Amino acid sequence: MRICRFTPHGWPDAEVRAGAAVGALDAPVIVDLAALLASEIVADGGEPGRAAELARATFPGSTVALLGSGGRAQREAERLLGALGDPEAARRETGPLGPHAHAREAVRLLAPVDRPPALRDFFAFEDHMVNALRNLGREVPPAWYEAPSHYVTRSASVFGPDEVGQWPAYTEKLDYELEFAIVIGRSGRDIPPERAWDHIAGLTIFNDLSCRDVQRREMGTAVGPAKTKGFDRGCATGPYLVTADEIPRPFEAGMRAFVNGELWSRGSAGSIHWSIEQIVAHASAGETLLPGDMLGSGTVGTGAGIEIDRWIKPGDVIRLEIDGLGALETRVERAGES
Amino acid sequence: MRICRFTPHGWPDAEVRAGAAVGALDAPVIVDLAALLASEIVADGGEPGRAAELARATFPGSTVALLGSGGRAQREAERLLGALGDPEAARRETGPLGPHAHAREAVRLLAPVDRPPALRDFFAFEDHMVNALRNLGREVPPAWYEAPSHYVTRSASVFGPDEVGQWPAYTEKLDYELEFAIVIGRSGRDIPPERAWDHIAGLTIFNDLSCRDVQRREMGTAVGPAKTKGFDRGCATGPYLVTADEIPRPFEAGMRAFVNGELWSRGSAGSIHWSIEQIVAHASAGETLLPGDMLGSGTVGTGAGIEIDRWIKPGDVIRLEIDGLGALETRVERAGES
Repeated sequence: MRICRFTPHGWPDAEVRAGAAVGALDAPVIVDLAALLASEIVADGGEPGRAAELARATFPGSTVALLGSGGRAQREAERLLGALGDPEAARRETGPLGPHAHAREAVRLLAPVDRPPALRDFFAFEDHMVNALRNLGREVPPAWYEAPSHYVTRSASVFGPDEVGQWPAYTEKLDYELEFAIVIGRSGRDIPPERAWDHIAGLTIFNDLSCRDVQRREMGTAVGPAKTKGFDRGCATGPYLVTADEIPRPFEAGMRAFVNGELWSRGSAGSIHWSIEQIVAHASAGETLLPGDMLGSGTVGTGAGIEIDRWIKPGDVIRLEIDGLGALETRVERAGES
Repeated sequence: MRICRFTPHGWPDAEVRAGAAVGALDAPVIVDLAALLASEIVADGGEPGRAAELARATFPGSTVALLGSGGRAQREAERLLGALGDPEAARRETGPLGPHAHAREAVRLLAPVDRPPALRDFFAFEDHMVNALRNLGREVPPAWYEAPSHYVTRSASVFGPDEVGQWPAYTEKLDYELEFAIVIGRSGRDIPPERAWDHIAGLTIFNDLSCRDVQRREMGTAVGPAKTKGFDRGCATGPYLVTADEIPRPFEAGMRAFVNGELWSRGSAGSIHWSIEQIVAHASAGETLLPGDMLGSGTVGTGAGIEIDRWIKPGDVIRLEIDGLGALETRVERAGES
């Protein structure tokens, strides 16, 4: 299943709905899960106000809350979608979509996970380390090979497909990063690698916007990226949380980045050095992973401008594609101009 | 005002109350703000169930929610406490406390801020940098003098005075850090230093437990402290959020750390290199600070075992005292033994 969060155009911004994207990855129909359940409850004799209330409690606009319901929410969604049949076919046959479904272009897609309790980003691809550090005048440190490396960043920096990324006022050298992110579905601590997938809700695309000029200073203090990353609208995510049952294992999907339509980066998730399972195990040592926690993979080799010495500018559109996860397009604008 | 969160002994753990500590710093009375307001509403003709509901909405158990109400919650609390008079005097005169007040020893004090939307920790004291880096075989990097340095850590690591700190299974060299933390009360972005206090709710004591052996490896990767800090029950906070109106400016309070009753560390908040105002300004550049966000000051000079080459062991009790903020005692136990 492809879980999303959305607001239909013309609705108030605060009205965020839980959705499932069905049909083609590039032209899906967005099903409003709460509206679908509410209509079922009413058809079963329920009172409309109460049906809406119960449906919203089952499918809240917060994915953190939805994942916090355990397996129940996903099972219920699958049952409802199964009963619905193929909405693409229905659209072709009958024309307009029902009140519980929207065309992709009729909604604003938000971050698939509203605000992760914790947002960690790993550096799991060796090629990226080699390429990026060479351009900062460094070599991959031996410690990188001892254990997965990551930093923690600000959850409130997460934003979605139909929002504009921030080019912070304090940087002249913004960069994109072609990554995927693991989303936790079930809480756990000290998780062994072989149990990692029991705790994974699914994957999404992740574009960790990074200020390379600031990074040069912050690497000098060895405290990690602080102002470099994690600013407002700094971590683009989406378009969907593709649930674990739809993720091939091992995950070896093709990954591509386009800038204004031109292919700049190409790699494979299969080239990862530290596996998804090792990442989850390492993160969970001594730390309780919580539903909605997001763990970035790190940039795939050649998946950032710093590796290929090509640089985006304000107004550019970065499109990340990962096979099976869809495409995430992000326009970046200087603060105050978006 | 000294804001706290607590659960009376014998109550369910999930029943968290918003409190104000009144009277002596070391032996306060904990006033249940919602209970106090509810009794006022009932005395004014309100229905008891509705009074309790309204009072809980005004003084929720979440300080993040309470601060999110703007100035209203603090003003209302001050009015109620003013009408209450001196509960210490009342106790001396009448014996038992009323239903809206508890002796300190009758409650479990929790973290004064439940879960900060973002948890940043700065390194604002130069002496600590010199001492700690010398023991890691390094010098203070020039970049440290260019701008305040910080890292972002995991909000869920925050815990309170009456909880036990975790000694993670993966470390042999846990350390304490004698710090204070700034708590944000009013959201804002790109805040100039001269407006910083408009956004500060107050200060609290902060003990950032740190794994020095892990830190040595993580400094090698230049991605900052990840497993070094921010594990479950890794950031002790409290006992109170002392509101900004009670904080002298500049803040030059004496700071002391005791281990099992013995004085190990002593310093002054006045020795800070990057000021509270500079810290808030730097953090807010391109990032919206949110109510409940917590910004650690960094360790005061000699305020950690690594600086003085003295090391705590499992079972030890660390007591941090900061003039005006109270005392925060934390026992640390190996994971699984607490």
